[in-house]
Amino acid sequence: MKIAIYGYGNLGRGIEAAIKYNSDMELFGIFTRRNPETVKTLTGAPVFSAETVENYKEEIDVLIICGGSATDLPEMTPRLAKSFNVIDSFDTHATIPEHFRAVDEAAREEGKVALISAGWDPGLFSVARLYASAALPSGKDYTFWGKGVSQGHSDAIRRIPGVVDARQYTVPIADALAKVRGGECPELTTAEKHKRECYVVAEDGADKALIEKTIKEMPNYFADYETSVEFVTLDELKKNHSGMPHGGSVIRNGVTGLCGENVHTVEFSLKLDSNPEFTASVLVCYARAVSRLAKRGEVGARTVFDVAPADLSMLSGEELRAHLL
Amino acid sequence: MKIAIYGYGNLGRGIEAAIKYNSDMELFGIFTRRNPETVKTLTGAPVFSAETVENYKEEIDVLIICGGSATDLPEMTPRLAKSFNVIDSFDTHATIPEHFRAVDEAAREEGKVALISAGWDPGLFSVARLYASAALPSGKDYTFWGKGVSQGHSDAIRRIPGVVDARQYTVPIADALAKVRGGECPELTTAEKHKRECYVVAEDGADKALIEKTIKEMPNYFADYETSVEFVTLDELKKNHSGMPHGGSVIRNGVTGLCGENVHTVEFSLKLDSNPEFTASVLVCYARAVSRLAKRGEVGARTVFDVAPADLSMLSGEELRAHLL
Repeated sequence: MKIAIYGYGNLGRGIEAAIKYNSDMELFGIFTRRNPETVKTLTGAPVFSAETVENYKEEIDVLIICGGSATDLPEMTPRLAKSFNVIDSFDTHATIPEHFRAVDEAAREEGKVALISAGWDPGLFSVARLYASAALPSGKDYTFWGKGVSQGHSDAIRRIPGVVDARQYTVPIADALAKVRGGECPELTTAEKHKRECYVVAEDGADKALIEKTIKEMPNYFADYETSVEFVTLDELKKNHSGMPHGGSVIRNGVTGLCGENVHTVEFSLKLDSNPEFTASVLVCYARAVSRLAKRGEVGARTVFDVAPADLSMLSGEELRAHLL
Repeated sequence: MKIAIYGYGNLGRGIEAAIKYNSDMELFGIFTRRNPETVKTLTGAPVFSAETVENYKEEIDVLIICGGSATDLPEMTPRLAKSFNVIDSFDTHATIPEHFRAVDEAAREEGKVALISAGWDPGLFSVARLYASAALPSGKDYTFWGKGVSQGHSDAIRRIPGVVDARQYTVPIADALAKVRGGECPELTTAEKHKRECYVVAEDGADKALIEKTIKEMPNYFADYETSVEFVTLDELKKNHSGMPHGGSVIRNGVTGLCGENVHTVEFSLKLDSNPEFTASVLVCYARAVSRLAKRGEVGARTVFDVAPADLSMLSGEELRAHLL
């Protein structure tokens, strides 16, 4: 199975590394919008100009599109789905239906398969929500994110005058998590489930009190949340906060019995050292499924909901039944 | 969708109750090997003799077979799969491949769909193992069971002379669980992951020390395990230990990155007030999938690995994408 990567940032690099763990796959190459000669890959994989991708449509089984959800993917995925079986990690929950329709229409034009919104949320978390709600139709879902780095919130802090660099962690509030895990069904807003920890490097002589106040009062990003701000040196930030950890938990509490007398808690959780590398690993196993769906003659847009688990695995049905069932 | 239940014990009663939570389903009736007139159902559902089931083959969309894995299901599922779309909860892991082949052959004779081994282990735990191993091909799986009642171990204690009644809980060992959750990959036997807690009612004047010794030295069941024995009164047993709780955790620790430098932990866990009712709820949502596969013209045996999550849900693809993705 020949896989190509379109876009070479953190996610693209994660996919390049992930393919090494999948013996049924081969990395055809990496397509970049930069000058290919300036791009140094992790594994020495060949680099091509994104403009030339159409020249290789006969040689690539699945193209993994690594772009941002805000502006890249809404344009890239429908365009590329006309020529390739594709997969993306589109993660703007609110506009998924719109993106799905655009990609579906494009993929059907030339009979391709396009899987959108793979990764962990959307992705494995979505799948966990679906299994739990199907098994327990009467219940309540909770999603907790973290502890993990939020790029958007870190960027928002960096834009404050006097800030050199910053890192923001989203952290589940232990009390709320314990209540939900205990089978209770409280009503909780996102702010009641999460707190925000900020590590900030200030310019020499900057007004730290003002920076802290500006962060804590920033609407949407921090004002509604329990927020802590700690000033650190640039060295400390690099040493202690340069990773990209993330994770979280999807929990459903639901009832069974004639009168709903029995309570059950279903939880799926992730603790990730590297958010982009894990996301990449999920995309890679869904690329396998895309290739199989295409070989079976399926056409159009799909999501993680439409893929049977067996299609994600290198193992045969017989091996899966013998060893994993 | 018309569902029928074949076998009316704890699991059958769980299914009768679970169907009430699924508005797209209707309970056709219950088939029993007992005299139907002696069977009182939870919801007033009609009861038929198991011998007459073939008379209703045109009226039932999916037959849920509720029998034991040791002797019932190896005979029942292949026989009934010739006339009905069926689903069972066959849970003898070692003989699943054999059961699958027998059921597959039978189901293909008349073009039926038969899903075997649904429930939570095998079932949702198997699915969790598959997703985690597909996303992290290089890693190690752990399954912890409990805290939950083991019927087999409780029965073994009841057979000891001088024992009136008993209840055995399988309990994960906290230290082992914490190590695995922390991302470590220790080698652990089942006995190193679990301890056994026994609550025993002894006859008046029975030799409690001998009973305790007999339990703790019982080969296979207890000898290899950290085992505690507490003597209680029959009233205490009924009051505090009459439920059927269970649960557990499937955990995979795996690595990503060029040199496996990043560690990730994926965990799926269940905390169940009623083991049979939750198992029943899972069977019911897989019965929906069986009905849909059959309507699409699929034929033969299937497992939870072959069912796309979307087929488990009452919601449409559009609703799922808008609300759960």
